[in-house]
Amino acid sequence: MGDRYASFANSGPGHAMIKRLGLPDPPRLRRWTPGDPLTEGPVLIGAAPGGRLGDQVRKVLAGAGVRTLDEPLSEGSHGALIFDASGITDAAELHELFDFFHPYARSVHRSGRVIVLGTPPASCDNPHEATAQRALEGLTRSIGKEFGRGITSQLVHVERGGEGALESTLRFLLSGRSAYVSGQVVTIGAGNPPAPADWQRPLAGKSALVTGAARGIGAAIARVLAREGADVIALDVPAAGDALAGVANDVRGRAVQLDLTADRAGQRLASHLTRPLDILVHNAGITRDRTIAKMDAAGWNSVLAVNLVAPSRINEALLGQGLIAEGGRIVGVASIAGIAGNRGQTNYATSKAGVIGLVQSSAPGLLERGITINAVAPGFIETAMTAKMPVSLREAGRRMNSLAQGGLPADVAETIAWFASPGSGTITGNVVRVCGQSLLGA
Amino acid sequence: MGDRYASFANSGPGHAMIKRLGLPDPPRLRRWTPGDPLTEGPVLIGAAPGGRLGDQVRKVLAGAGVRTLDEPLSEGSHGALIFDASGITDAAELHELFDFFHPYARSVHRSGRVIVLGTPPASCDNPHEATAQRALEGLTRSIGKEFGRGITSQLVHVERGGEGALESTLRFLLSGRSAYVSGQVVTIGAGNPPAPADWQRPLAGKSALVTGAARGIGAAIARVLAREGADVIALDVPAAGDALAGVANDVRGRAVQLDLTADRAGQRLASHLTRPLDILVHNAGITRDRTIAKMDAAGWNSVLAVNLVAPSRINEALLGQGLIAEGGRIVGVASIAGIAGNRGQTNYATSKAGVIGLVQSSAPGLLERGITINAVAPGFIETAMTAKMPVSLREAGRRMNSLAQGGLPADVAETIAWFASPGSGTITGNVVRVCGQSLLGA
Repeated sequence: MGDRYASFANSGPGHAMIKRLGLPDPPRLRRWTPGDPLTEGPVLIGAAPGGRLGDQVRKVLAGAGVRTLDEPLSEGSHGALIFDASGITDAAELHELFDFFHPYARSVHRSGRVIVLGTPPASCDNPHEATAQRALEGLTRSIGKEFGRGITSQLVHVERGGEGALESTLRFLLSGRSAYVSGQVVTIGAGNPPAPADWQRPLAGKSALVTGAARGIGAAIARVLAREGADVIALDVPAAGDALAGVANDVRGRAVQLDLTADRAGQRLASHLTRPLDILVHNAGITRDRTIAKMDAAGWNSVLAVNLVAPSRINEALLGQGLIAEGGRIVGVASIAGIAGNRGQTNYATSKAGVIGLVQSSAPGLLERGITINAVAPGFIETAMTAKMPVSLREAGRRMNSLAQGGLPADVAETIAWFASPGSGTITGNVVRVCGQSLLGA
Repeated sequence: MGDRYASFANSGPGHAMIKRLGLPDPPRLRRWTPGDPLTEGPVLIGAAPGGRLGDQVRKVLAGAGVRTLDEPLSEGSHGALIFDASGITDAAELHELFDFFHPYARSVHRSGRVIVLGTPPASCDNPHEATAQRALEGLTRSIGKEFGRGITSQLVHVERGGEGALESTLRFLLSGRSAYVSGQVVTIGAGNPPAPADWQRPLAGKSALVTGAARGIGAAIARVLAREGADVIALDVPAAGDALAGVANDVRGRAVQLDLTADRAGQRLASHLTRPLDILVHNAGITRDRTIAKMDAAGWNSVLAVNLVAPSRINEALLGQGLIAEGGRIVGVASIAGIAGNRGQTNYATSKAGVIGLVQSSAPGLLERGITINAVAPGFIETAMTAKMPVSLREAGRRMNSLAQGGLPADVAETIAWFASPGSGTITGNVVRVCGQSLLGA
């Protein structure tokens, strides 16, 4: 299940050879280890006139021990370029983007970061401003495809009144936690969520439940949430009991064996909870790939039942019994297939598009209770499942993204931990792809 | 500028060879010629219980002379499968989709159609319904990738109260006019737009202005709008005067030479108009491709000025002077690059993302005046511009979509003519890709 091509490309002779042959050049990505600095190198901050976010960025980064610059380094490289575009209120002002990024485009460190901050177009004062703000997305997505060397690029929409809520997102996007997240648009709502007491363990004291936790992405989620301080309940079907016990043991958590598609699964799950959950991650999912012409009803129904109906029913059961705490976090796992559709996956894509619908439609009602609900949408992640794919499909999946490699289960888990952070209390209804900016989409 | 591979693949010996070698198999697409029937073969209609749209579909198709079936053909093939999913109010009911599509998946005629009708998730009564309705998108996008043979698949969201506004959209999507449109989500708003007096010439008596009309996609737009009955003003820069005169002559219209980025271009354009415009198509666009590191300011500014600032300013000038008629139609031309970003096109992608912003942000205010504004987003279209691309990029662009070929300028034009139809008066703020369901996206 390793990516031998990437290992080869990152060796000395291998790298020389692939450069000469013009083959894909997957960089070694910077990934998070506790204690790492947020960036490798100082952060250059720019702004269009009238922006409302630059000062807050400086304040957050100063508090986080990151050196920020208003004037560029004359030599050496920048750990990140951050541009506050919130002051751009007309298309004629978009040259501010060129003025900032053109001279420093080559100054970004390997696995460095580009972050553009703006206002959600739907919240803009008038069509001129909304047009210009919407245009930012074309820039950030193009930069993600252009800069290479493991550099990621994101657009962060900050609602007016959300200026004080930037920290959890900046910490995530700047650090190696977001290694495989690129070309995304994140929206931060208005409000001032509490900062965690300790940013190194932001989930300390929080209770978390992860479904499908016996292996792969689910096991990584359990491990990352535990590393961040959460008390983790690892849930999976009884057939995965041994692997599940291993994960629960690793994270010093509890294992719960339960089939979430069974009758009264919500009530049964509730009976295992000794206190309300702070974090609920619906990771359990299955595939039964066939074209719809060749699929049988069981293949359709089982995928819909596990991937979509169960999360919806579990949410309802736990919320109805007060078993999601005030300020709780619900995270669903969608998929690129749910965004773009996929041949041979009508059932899976329908279920994952439904997960996006569940997140987007539930968010407004839950926010009144201080609960957020978001989704990650993984692209090609290196797991036992993808290791079994035919080699041509697997290589296409690995290489057809801006980072020219597959992601790791931990990359999905880190993204979920960011949603789960106390500091992310105004982030809801988001769908963030963890796909290395896969070419595939809708 | 022809697609020689597709011609080869559509020859007898060529087709046998590419099937044997497992190469891409671009089907010959059914395209519209006046007088053609809407479909090749009868239309099978299905519905989930409680749907509100099936009866209206039957009525429209009966009036359009299309044979509809409630029971499938036992032999022969269906011209289209239409499923009214508006009755699905919970994820547990999504098996209705499988029940309808599984048995008939192989019964669809070459270049046939799949259309699923539903309710916009944001307008649903509750999260259960919104979740299930959002899930439909996963199905229709997967079917587009799965059925092959030139069959397209769309999801049509119909607002409550929009049941009577289906006809222009069904006529477009069923017919060869939508040959290169697949995997799209279209939203029809509430209201009852007037039917054109003659569906063969729905734009009779309408005044239309097309920018960038001297060649390529713009010339095709002028021709298609004229074919549909419009009086066309073809506009382009003075340097394109000869070609422009040829197009204007072909469509028995008028040529206007004007640089839309010049000072007071709006007033100058207004001086050429003898009556308010019913249809305004912002097609003029340029590229100046370079990475942002290598780009100069002129390359950035000219692309933004032509592609984004000019359409915004022209709209404002003409609307301000009452030169867009009540019930008018404005159509912008975006691009897949504006959706997904593109390497070497930070300027172009920013401008085209801005066009999407212009359309989405202007739509609500204009609807009060009976004016709609929408965008097409072309993928790989066979033009003189794409003919100049390096062969490997060109072949990738042509084949990386569900139809395994590039589109024609007329495909973009037909989509614009559908937006321009009197019957499309409740369709606004839409961005519809004309890309053969390109794999590329966001």
